[in-house]
Amino acid sequence: MPSAPKTPLKPAKTVSRPSRVNKAADAGEDREPRQARRKRETRDRLVDAAFRLMAERGMAGVAINEITEAADVGFGSFYNHFESKEAIYDALIDRVFNDFGDALDRLVKDVADPAEMIAYCIRHALLRARREPLWGQFLLRESYSSLAMTKGLGQRLLRDIGRGVAAKRFHAPDVFMSFIAAGGIVLAAVAAEQMAGSETSPQAALIKGMGMTVGNIPERTAALVLTTLGVSAKEAAAIARKPLPVTEPPQAGA
Amino acid sequence: MPSAPKTPLKPAKTVSRPSRVNKAADAGEDREPRQARRKRETRDRLVDAAFRLMAERGMAGVAINEITEAADVGFGSFYNHFESKEAIYDALIDRVFNDFGDALDRLVKDVADPAEMIAYCIRHALLRARREPLWGQFLLRESYSSLAMTKGLGQRLLRDIGRGVAAKRFHAPDVFMSFIAAGGIVLAAVAAEQMAGSETSPQAALIKGMGMTVGNIPERTAALVLTTLGVSAKEAAAIARKPLPVTEPPQAGA
Repeated sequence: MPSAPKTPLKPAKTVSRPSRVNKAADAGEDREPRQARRKRETRDRLVDAAFRLMAERGMAGVAINEITEAADVGFGSFYNHFESKEAIYDALIDRVFNDFGDALDRLVKDVADPAEMIAYCIRHALLRARREPLWGQFLLRESYSSLAMTKGLGQRLLRDIGRGVAAKRFHAPDVFMSFIAAGGIVLAAVAAEQMAGSETSPQAALIKGMGMTVGNIPERTAALVLTTLGVSAKEAAAIARKPLPVTEPPQAGA
Repeated sequence: MPSAPKTPLKPAKTVSRPSRVNKAADAGEDREPRQARRKRETRDRLVDAAFRLMAERGMAGVAINEITEAADVGFGSFYNHFESKEAIYDALIDRVFNDFGDALDRLVKDVADPAEMIAYCIRHALLRARREPLWGQFLLRESYSSLAMTKGLGQRLLRDIGRGVAAKRFHAPDVFMSFIAAGGIVLAAVAAEQMAGSETSPQAALIKGMGMTVGNIPERTAALVLTTLGVSAKEAAAIARKPLPVTEPPQAGA
């Protein structure tokens, strides 16, 4: 990425908080003593700053003093909240992967068909990556740094593939490779969204010039993943175009 | 990656050089004046150091003085060889993607079947990522930072998919998504190789405990990509198990 900025510090952007915090504040139920509230706010600022920095450079490329400077917090205070860089990274993983996954689980809890369920989840993840580019960047950057089969979104994907196989809805004789394929396709689609998702980007023009199109990446990705799980191309396309359930937008919980 | 080292500087590892350099040196044909040779050697050391550092942290996470220190070269000398960090990055891209792609092209130039060709290339890429973990890391880290449809391995993949479609060997009505899928699957497989490819790794044990297996990832990946291109699962598996052409090992040229 030859055009990457030399210093990745940017004006702070709002990063969504877990809903319990927002709700408590909105409803005026915030009865925390001032000191506890301040401590929590400082912790949130540190996590926000770490999120922005690590999304750009990965954990190894960020120093603790850069996090505290970006958060406008004294260096020493960091250790009132986190033991180490690894600890704040774990807090980020929770925010990036688990909170979103929990919200998705709530969203599709009444969807009986494993194929529909997986298509909804993939589309929501891609829509969020489009809406919040930093979130997508973090997902891309960190998904490959752990096998991610035992936590977060990877664990959920593996679980959902397994359920579809058990229900004989999916035909996936090599479950490990089906997991690799589904995860790899979604991540590559996140990257495509980030680079060419805007119809007016130079990349989109380039792709159009090659006779291809960048529209509807979430739906096309969902359809493609379903076909790798043995759903026919025609049925997969129909499922991927169904209206999304939006009773609880995933971003509120993540 | 909570266990990542705080400082990624490691003892220098040998990074393969373009074959023309090795050949010239081996054959005693190196008639460069000493100064020119020294300049080239310094340049190579800088590229090697940048390769190691950027594979771990990406371009944005590495400063020029870190590259010169790791290469044991004075800071100012950097600018005798490269105008900027972007310029040394471009040299790396050449090494990581184009040299290897050229070697693959030579390797499969007599393979007539587009399906066989793509399977060989995928297997060679995965074998190289296993043999040279830093190479695999670089591929993973940087493949998503550009759309990569107009250069390096991505360009070749898109070209090869297009050839197979034109020859009616592949059935891929959505070429853009087929490219995303093939690329995404290969990259996820590289990540899987890196994390679980050793049969004795804890991740491999975990995956086995879930009733899955980590063996033969290159062959399984090639087979899976072929099925996303419309080749039947049975034929794809047979093609992916064919003996690899090794008339010219790709690492010699990359």
